[in-house]
Amino acid sequence: MPSVASIESACLAALRGAGLSEEFAQVQLSLLLEAELRGTTSHGLLRLPRVVERIISGATDPASPGKGTWRGTALLEVDGEQGLGPIVAKFALDQVTQRATTCGVAVAAIRNCDHLGMLAWYAEQVAKKGQILIALTISEALVHPWGGRQAMLGTNPIAIGVPSEPEPFVLDMATSLVSMGKIHDHANRGMPIPLGWALDANGTPTTNASAAKDGSIAPFGGAKGYALGLAFELLVTALTASATGRDVKGTLDPVHPCNKGDVFIVLEPAHAVGPVISQFMNEIRNCPPADPSSPVRVPGDRALSTRANRLDQDVCLAPETWKRIQQLAGIN
Amino acid sequence: MPSVASIESACLAALRGAGLSEEFAQVQLSLLLEAELRGTTSHGLLRLPRVVERIISGATDPASPGKGTWRGTALLEVDGEQGLGPIVAKFALDQVTQRATTCGVAVAAIRNCDHLGMLAWYAEQVAKKGQILIALTISEALVHPWGGRQAMLGTNPIAIGVPSEPEPFVLDMATSLVSMGKIHDHANRGMPIPLGWALDANGTPTTNASAAKDGSIAPFGGAKGYALGLAFELLVTALTASATGRDVKGTLDPVHPCNKGDVFIVLEPAHAVGPVISQFMNEIRNCPPADPSSPVRVPGDRALSTRANRLDQDVCLAPETWKRIQQLAGIN
Repeated sequence: MPSVASIESACLAALRGAGLSEEFAQVQLSLLLEAELRGTTSHGLLRLPRVVERIISGATDPASPGKGTWRGTALLEVDGEQGLGPIVAKFALDQVTQRATTCGVAVAAIRNCDHLGMLAWYAEQVAKKGQILIALTISEALVHPWGGRQAMLGTNPIAIGVPSEPEPFVLDMATSLVSMGKIHDHANRGMPIPLGWALDANGTPTTNASAAKDGSIAPFGGAKGYALGLAFELLVTALTASATGRDVKGTLDPVHPCNKGDVFIVLEPAHAVGPVISQFMNEIRNCPPADPSSPVRVPGDRALSTRANRLDQDVCLAPETWKRIQQLAGIN
Repeated sequence: MPSVASIESACLAALRGAGLSEEFAQVQLSLLLEAELRGTTSHGLLRLPRVVERIISGATDPASPGKGTWRGTALLEVDGEQGLGPIVAKFALDQVTQRATTCGVAVAAIRNCDHLGMLAWYAEQVAKKGQILIALTISEALVHPWGGRQAMLGTNPIAIGVPSEPEPFVLDMATSLVSMGKIHDHANRGMPIPLGWALDANGTPTTNASAAKDGSIAPFGGAKGYALGLAFELLVTALTASATGRDVKGTLDPVHPCNKGDVFIVLEPAHAVGPVISQFMNEIRNCPPADPSSPVRVPGDRALSTRANRLDQDVCLAPETWKRIQQLAGIN
């Protein structure tokens, strides 16, 4: 397995080769590598080839940081101008985190920007600097409404970051029951999926992972999870005037300009509330567990322990991903 | 069954008798009656006696609209000074909806205020006037963490209102699998509850509704719903410096001053986005249904149809609730 240093070097070469500046390449890599280190493989380095392919096809502009306009004292409207997700997002976050220090709250409403990647990355950065973040984003339609038979909604994740010591609280979850990546993974291994995860293209419940790839994923938590995913999609659309449902393009494919919306809400916490948050998180961890061998976890605990282990070791990259990254970097 | 007019008249008499001004009594009644009409019985008129009892015990101040201080241009910190939920909330919402028109976003961070009641009421009012609302509130600890055996979290609901025609989109849902009211209802009727709804006081899964009353309710949607409920509780606490977990008091009982927090985030939508929202909601309703006899619903659809039916008829009040309200009103 390659070392983290050699992976970094190849990825940066591939991104620079696609037209990213040194600064932008560092930001894009940092996001993907962080997802890899935390075990969020679906949002890790396997996405790098697609980032490059989208630039080559002309769907993505590797040099655009987006264009921001204040629609009110505390609401920044951002046209991403087809820039890269983490570049446009960082540009927007820099402005709204600054504005929130005087306004108490500030919001970025972003459209025409590529896939943001792992939302936890943004939530952690903001919370580490002492502010609260609510992040919402939309994906292509992959999820069926509760009681429906067709993909109509994105996987519509939410991330929430809250400052605390020693580590901030970070939630990052999709409103789908599982990710499409997980279904692809089962299909690739020829494994069945549990009944209830997905419907096939005809809207019939299936355990065949390959059939599910052309169908739709269930929302998490039944009717409530569906309701929440729909509410997030409507809220993001209402704020950003972005596309909805089956009209959303460009979050996964290599060729379509991305037309989904993203929303960041940054909030200033009350004074000196940090220790209360940490203490409550520890109380939760100390809740008597149903299974004595499985202590109660707080969201983010597993990602941080995975990260701590992986930093000591090499990153476990799939051979075909590593080969493709080396090709794009012009190595071998 | 009593008519809506006679119920209104008795409720107003009971509230005025407890010290509410005519204006405050109208607001408090309007909230409870609206919940009743929509079929959210758990947040309906059965709550009125408790509102009065809390005033009599001194836990609630029926005359306080709360005291607001702007912690930033767009963040209103509200000390509810133990006022009634809908009174303090209305006072706060009036200010932040106004401020959002120039700032694009404004937030109310409320503490020391009684139970807000049905959040849909606030979301609908704000959305009908053309703004987006995200409302969060905390309850006493009733929900166990995923993998835990003890109640540590509130039922922590979220409401989201988005403007659209002819009716706004309104989501209002708890992050618990069911309400404690539903478990009490099963206990009162001597009915068992499904396995998975709740644990008894020892943390053991139970189908005995009476045993569940002293135990804890499951979060909705397993680990994800738990994570979301916890994130909401941390976010609200961080913004309002209110109590957390098992320290939260006064949302249900008759004697404790209420120490939970509430958060309203009001956002200005992008220009002329309303028709897009309505169209997407209709596309969702027209999604091919899994069961041809059950069309896909959008959150709020059922509440509005219940409301339309009930307005033509009498409100279906439990006899003991009606008797208690008449007593409090000094009737018979």
